[in-house]
Amino acid sequence: MKALVYRGPGKKVLENHAMPQLEAPDDAIVRITRTTICGTDLHILKGDVPTCTPGRILGHEGVGVVEQVGAAVSAFRPGEHVLISCISACGKCDYCRQGMYSHCTTGGWILGNTIDGTQAEYVRIAHADTSLYRIPAGADEEALVMLSDILPTGFECGVLNGRIEPGDTVAIVGAGPVGLASLLTAQFYSPAQIISIDLNANRLEVAKRFGATSTINGAQGAVVEQVKALTGGRGVDCAVEAVGVPASFVLCQDIIAPGGTIANIGVHGVKVDLHLERLWSQNITITTRLVDTVTTPMLLKTVQSGRIEPTKLITHRFKLDHILDAYDTFARAAETHALKVIIET
Amino acid sequence: MKALVYRGPGKKVLENHAMPQLEAPDDAIVRITRTTICGTDLHILKGDVPTCTPGRILGHEGVGVVEQVGAAVSAFRPGEHVLISCISACGKCDYCRQGMYSHCTTGGWILGNTIDGTQAEYVRIAHADTSLYRIPAGADEEALVMLSDILPTGFECGVLNGRIEPGDTVAIVGAGPVGLASLLTAQFYSPAQIISIDLNANRLEVAKRFGATSTINGAQGAVVEQVKALTGGRGVDCAVEAVGVPASFVLCQDIIAPGGTIANIGVHGVKVDLHLERLWSQNITITTRLVDTVTTPMLLKTVQSGRIEPTKLITHRFKLDHILDAYDTFARAAETHALKVIIET
Amino acid sequence: MKALVYRGPGKKVLENHAMPQLEAPDDAIVRITRTTICGTDLHILKGDVPTCTPGRILGHEGVGVVEQVGAAVSAFRPGEHVLISCISACGKCDYCRQGMYSHCTTGGWILGNTIDGTQAEYVRIAHADTSLYRIPAGADEEALVMLSDILPTGFECGVLNGRIEPGDTVAIVGAGPVGLASLLTAQFYSPAQIISIDLNANRLEVAKRFGATSTINGAQGAVVEQVKALTGGRGVDCAVEAVGVPASFVLCQDIIAPGGTIANIGVHGVKVDLHLERLWSQNITITTRLVDTVTTPMLLKTVQSGRIEPTKLITHRFKLDHILDAYDTFARAAETHALKVIIET
Amino acid sequence: MKALVYRGPGKKVLENHAMPQLEAPDDAIVRITRTTICGTDLHILKGDVPTCTPGRILGHEGVGVVEQVGAAVSAFRPGEHVLISCISACGKCDYCRQGMYSHCTTGGWILGNTIDGTQAEYVRIAHADTSLYRIPAGADEEALVMLSDILPTGFECGVLNGRIEPGDTVAIVGAGPVGLASLLTAQFYSPAQIISIDLNANRLEVAKRFGATSTINGAQGAVVEQVKALTGGRGVDCAVEAVGVPASFVLCQDIIAPGGTIANIGVHGVKVDLHLERLWSQNITITTRLVDTVTTPMLLKTVQSGRIEPTKLITHRFKLDHILDAYDTFARAAETHALKVIIET
Repeated sequence: MKALVYRGPGKKVLENHAMPQLEAPDDAIVRITRTTICGTDLHILKGDVPTCTPGRILGHEGVGVVEQVGAAVSAFRPGEHVLISCISACGKCDYCRQGMYSHCTTGGWILGNTIDGTQAEYVRIAHADTSLYRIPAGADEEALVMLSDILPTGFECGVLNGRIEPGDTVAIVGAGPVGLASLLTAQFYSPAQIISIDLNANRLEVAKRFGATSTINGAQGAVVEQVKALTGGRGVDCAVEAVGVPASFVLCQDIIAPGGTIANIGVHGVKVDLHLERLWSQNITITTRLVDTVTTPMLLKTVQSGRIEPTKLITHRFKLDHILDAYDTFARAAETHALKVIIET
Repeated sequence: MKALVYRGPGKKVLENHAMPQLEAPDDAIVRITRTTICGTDLHILKGDVPTCTPGRILGHEGVGVVEQVGAAVSAFRPGEHVLISCISACGKCDYCRQGMYSHCTTGGWILGNTIDGTQAEYVRIAHADTSLYRIPAGADEEALVMLSDILPTGFECGVLNGRIEPGDTVAIVGAGPVGLASLLTAQFYSPAQIISIDLNANRLEVAKRFGATSTINGAQGAVVEQVKALTGGRGVDCAVEAVGVPASFVLCQDIIAPGGTIANIGVHGVKVDLHLERLWSQNITITTRLVDTVTTPMLLKTVQSGRIEPTKLITHRFKLDHILDAYDTFARAAETHALKVIIET
Repeated sequence: MKALVYRGPGKKVLENHAMPQLEAPDDAIVRITRTTICGTDLHILKGDVPTCTPGRILGHEGVGVVEQVGAAVSAFRPGEHVLISCISACGKCDYCRQGMYSHCTTGGWILGNTIDGTQAEYVRIAHADTSLYRIPAGADEEALVMLSDILPTGFECGVLNGRIEPGDTVAIVGAGPVGLASLLTAQFYSPAQIISIDLNANRLEVAKRFGATSTINGAQGAVVEQVKALTGGRGVDCAVEAVGVPASFVLCQDIIAPGGTIANIGVHGVKVDLHLERLWSQNITITTRLVDTVTTPMLLKTVQSGRIEPTKLITHRFKLDHILDAYDTFARAAETHALKVIIET
Repeated sequence: MKALVYRGPGKKVLENHAMPQLEAPDDAIVRITRTTICGTDLHILKGDVPTCTPGRILGHEGVGVVEQVGAAVSAFRPGEHVLISCISACGKCDYCRQGMYSHCTTGGWILGNTIDGTQAEYVRIAHADTSLYRIPAGADEEALVMLSDILPTGFECGVLNGRIEPGDTVAIVGAGPVGLASLLTAQFYSPAQIISIDLNANRLEVAKRFGATSTINGAQGAVVEQVKALTGGRGVDCAVEAVGVPASFVLCQDIIAPGGTIANIGVHGVKVDLHLERLWSQNITITTRLVDTVTTPMLLKTVQSGRIEPTKLITHRFKLDHILDAYDTFARAAETHALKVIIET
């Protein structure tokens, strides 16, 4: 089968690869119909993710059709149309029972990381019963690719952790795909204001179209002052960090109101300054989270009921044969205005 | 009247001072019967609290008898026995209505800071109806002095913010008065393990007597390893920071389990490192809080019902005439083994 | 001044009445600009509310301008534009501190019940600082009349108590004004389905316009079967009872899914059957609540931000001189299609 | 093997029975070392549980040793010492993922009901990975038998659903085994008062020993008056119904304070009156729940740490050969003072 294989920092090839096989009784083999590329895949290609070693098929998002199931799989049968979660969960360990699938002792984020991933014609899914989701008849496949990772990430790590409530004032720092996923799903809770902050004018325009009530271009400076001006001097109830660099995390500290919550989504590579000399008395909460995908069933319902349109996030489409072009387009997002790119197999 | 007055960094005098007067219709004048000294008073004396200017009567804790009330005070009458909260709350502003009395727009921590305090024979209490609490007949006055500040601080900032649950594993970093207040009130929720960590052997012995299931002397190193050994390698569900220096906050980051909560109580003077490069994916929560004293009525009930014995925290007693000795004893806690000292007027 | 006075069961007169006077230091006198009529006013007129005695000026909703304030009022000054809450709250008693203003020991629902109300040119408001809300410049006065009672009632008793979450399936039994207020505010939380159930075809059409995803006319029978058909046989996550008769409360029990919540808003006159022989094992929650109006500040923000349009609820407008016509129109809602009627003074 | 078999209303026999066999890949066979009898077993014998048909081996509680596991069982191996949960949970269905194991679509309460149970030498456990719990080395087996059903039932349905908090006033109506389990586990949250109410003087004495701060013998009348006297006229914050008859549920309604919670545990056979004509405005919550046993891991930790001593509930011990005597002793609890009886195999 065709597969996109990581060959070490800076190197990826589309090549013929052996078909995946069932390895455990709770495995399933899924034929991929659509997948996509995540910012994390770019991180791997930079060599930033040491757990992912050369030879690995990349990709942790996608939809497809069940091809084969192990003896212990009871919830799915060959031929069923499924959504693949970026997080594999055994459903049995202490973490899974607490709904913290991200820390499953035999799962978590393994797809396209420590086991072969979805940027291929077929993929093996571990713990299939609790890592796949049945796709309702008539559902839009492309929309559901957004439910593998980006929407639950924006929702769980940003919106739920940020405890966004009706009437709240929210700032989302970063208007890349994950920041936009937070922006879309924050609206489930009807905040009064959503301020989108980024350095890129195009992304801020997209944010505006997606429901931001204000946008601030950080490239022009005075971000804190603008946020304060928009919030009667008080700051925001919730600041979502969707970038992953020290400056944006410090910005969140500068704009958070007393009693507010900073919900970190960003993947950070270095430590950050926490200004406890100022914040110790401000009754704030800071949260971190690797997506658990526990809200996938809830998100499926909101997509089915039309409360959210995830296809808004899709800007480009490619065939698997042209996945290298897809990577190129996605990597040059500033120029190409790419958000999410769909790969059809 | 006699009063302990701050005269600038390093200087305090016990002197005759004019009696306080009603200034607003919701004020009350309270005759102090017992007060105490807080670590914060020592901070002021070091010059670390710029809002507290020379000439200020210190002290924000105490019990007493209502002497006089303003026209708008409806809940209290002269002669009533009352507990003074360290936080003055108007009960009307947005923050007060959210239960965040610490940020009351015309109150908060003002006593012994921006208005004259309780280390005197009389004190003026602003917003008396919502800043005083009636003392039940037969209650132990000394026990209730602990409810002005230290018990709600340990409970709200450490235990409630730390979301301690039955069966949890808890570490409390710092076994000074406020850490011990957390230790006592953590037991309201029946955690399975409470690990007390300090550099002082005497304080750790006290912690053991107060209910710590294990103690670790940080002076002997290898604290992280010992915590890991006590928790099956997993770390703690809740780490309470009750010191206020970068090293202890970093320790909390080193011992927190995935999904855990770091509840900061410490008053920090400088920024700290937050290791997001490691914690971004650990689903942790960090909280800060200036005590709101919203749990004072709940704490009064637990004291009345004997579920907690706050007098355990009291090590020394002095007359107001000897308050300078009391300060000396309290400041040299390492030698004197002082926790809380009672000042009788 | 002109005032609508209750003269015993079945009798109301628009008459000249003495002006209200300040009676306590925390009172305010408000000149009413707009008020409305509530279903509860009709209950009083039927003689169903024994606490309301003849001679009482009716009405507990309205907006106006502060005319005079007592010595203890600090948050409002004469000339300020204010929203009157149907619930008076002292902000000091145990219930108020827990956010349960409805049970304020010296307040609660007293306006137009045990003290004179708002269907008059002027009204005295007790505990003014915590019972009035400042109206932002430029706000739509008519919209805000809906925030005195009906919107917080629908929201707090139906939506918050019903713990409605994104993706949920909700049934609202009763499409009168309060059921419609629940319908509008339920959408703050983006449920997947909102099923409106009533006996009146016109009200169901309104419900559809207001955002119901399905409507069921109970007059045509088979309600339970229809709800089951709409929910894959499972029943609803949340059933809001907005009628107040045994049959509608029993219907809620028949359509609730395991794990669901029945949120009662209806004012019941007789006991109801609770089918514990069936429900004891169904993990359900039943809630009751007299509105606390603690969410008024939050609702003000959602109105200001355009997340909700309360004026949708207004069907008729009258001058105070014609308030008897307004009552007539409101009482004959089935014919007149009245929801909320605005009375201008 | 020996097994206690239900032979229709009023009939049970201890007989030789075929050994259980693995039927599904996620089954395990467990050799029972200790089991017990539940009030529900008596209900079955009265013919009150139609899902349990003649020929069924009774019993849904116990500890033992894993004998054999199916191919899909990954968490347990033969020879491991395990606690059997009364609830079987697949861990995969919608209900299980929400932590509502009691409604597992292929599990729930099936043991000793729709499949053969634990009052035998061996038992087949369905969904073994998520229905068994590893027993820590050195744990007291008898204590852990109490974790199969009675402690999680008292804790989840009574204490957690009752939202008991430090300082609360709690009434537990019924001092049978399950009411006493609530009484023991309520103390995890340090309520100020726990009032135990029963008709049996011996059980009330036990309740007192187990930590009730007051007891009321309902046989002597005036229960409501006594509760009001103990609570300053206010009623209780939480009323736990642990009987299952209309009178005790109505009593809960009579003693609940505004804002309080009635947590039903009792298995009811007939409908009850709900006095909404009085309670609609009292801001109360009523909950029902079939135990989910989601707190079993938490309870194991509290037992291991000595925060609770479940063996207090054990009054008698029998060999499996004498299980008919055990039933007799348990059924005549009023005379024998039996609470829980241990059956050793």
